[in-house]
Amino acid sequence: MSAQPRLLEVRKNILKQNDIVARALRERFRAEGTFVVSLVSSPGAGKTAFLEKTLTLLRPHYRVAALVGDLATENDALRLARSHAPVKQITTGTLCHLEAAMVERALADWDTDTPEFLFIENVGNLVCPSSYDLGESLRLVLLSVTEGEDKPLKYPTIFNSADVAVITKIDLAEAVEFDEALAHANIQAVRPAMHCLTVSAKTGVGMPEYLRFLENRFADAFETSGPRI
Amino acid sequence: MSAQPRLLEVRKNILKQNDIVARALRERFRAEGTFVVSLVSSPGAGKTAFLEKTLTLLRPHYRVAALVGDLATENDALRLARSHAPVKQITTGTLCHLEAAMVERALADWDTDTPEFLFIENVGNLVCPSSYDLGESLRLVLLSVTEGEDKPLKYPTIFNSADVAVITKIDLAEAVEFDEALAHANIQAVRPAMHCLTVSAKTGVGMPEYLRFLENRFADAFETSGPRI
Repeated sequence: MSAQPRLLEVRKNILKQNDIVARALRERFRAEGTFVVSLVSSPGAGKTAFLEKTLTLLRPHYRVAALVGDLATENDALRLARSHAPVKQITTGTLCHLEAAMVERALADWDTDTPEFLFIENVGNLVCPSSYDLGESLRLVLLSVTEGEDKPLKYPTIFNSADVAVITKIDLAEAVEFDEALAHANIQAVRPAMHCLTVSAKTGVGMPEYLRFLENRFADAFETSGPRI
Repeated sequence: MSAQPRLLEVRKNILKQNDIVARALRERFRAEGTFVVSLVSSPGAGKTAFLEKTLTLLRPHYRVAALVGDLATENDALRLARSHAPVKQITTGTLCHLEAAMVERALADWDTDTPEFLFIENVGNLVCPSSYDLGESLRLVLLSVTEGEDKPLKYPTIFNSADVAVITKIDLAEAVEFDEALAHANIQAVRPAMHCLTVSAKTGVGMPEYLRFLENRFADAFETSGPRI
């Protein structure tokens, strides 16, 4: 298709522009003592339920806040607000991913205390968010047991761009005959030595280990003393 | 972002180019008596399992074939080949959707009998495939019960660009406390009067109704006589 080279060029410019904004955000988060965790996954992998649980469990011990991206609706922000943490929805219209400039704009007019943990829930999409740095400290890719064990092989880029894989909805593993060893093998095939957690936001399984992991990363980043939970 | 207007312009050209190829494909399919069904959904909504079952059940009665799109791997083509129908994988690299030109290229060097039903499984993505006409006769959007009932509200464009909604994995409805009436209400809110089917590829529930629906559409399109199954 003749238009392709030009599209690539324009796309490169957008990515470059995004990287500049993301770098500025990262410096700002670092200076302000905010540890930023972004979440990517397919639609329906359980990002919002997992994040609601995370906010609820962290909030008594840390200042937490969340930004949540969707094409339409404020549903996710309403669900997350049940955690009583400050939450702001970013609606992207037809855009299939968040960009750093959207995060910057959302923060600009947000009258909330500077959080210690800021979570950013991306639009549900296993392809497009991989290219956009949001200035996060840690990117989690969620894989629900209902999606099948071969997702890492089929969407390698998103697993490569993430820091940690989180297997969600483990309470449904038996009902869907999920093969956890195979899922781990496929994650390792795409990204050797990738850190991997297994959780159920519904039953709470794996949540203590996940929170301890976040606390340790926070302590490492800002050289604070031990866990508060 | 200053690059945006230029990106929009380039994107419009690509879409226009895609529409021209799609129109030519549609005319060709019509002339050759091929009814083309495309499938879109999130990653892991069960497109491949559903398609494998469809091919297996249709194949004794119709000439069937399938094209399947993925970023990487030939896994889906291998799974679908178990149906003994002709199947061809299209790997898209980093591209998050199929385009009409890819379908055209895949057909060009495919030495197979002209099918009566050609199925095209798109890349797992609820956003980007909505804009790309593939010359199909019918576009199905799949929504698995594990994804949550609010997906139509959050991804309205893909539901609007599809002809039929198929609720999949209904065998898991109880385990995930799926509210079918709410899902239907949300589909109707986004696209009033949208035709909706409910299936389980695992147990076979709903498959006869779905096959009857396909047969009727095929008969309407090519003015053939009644069902063969």
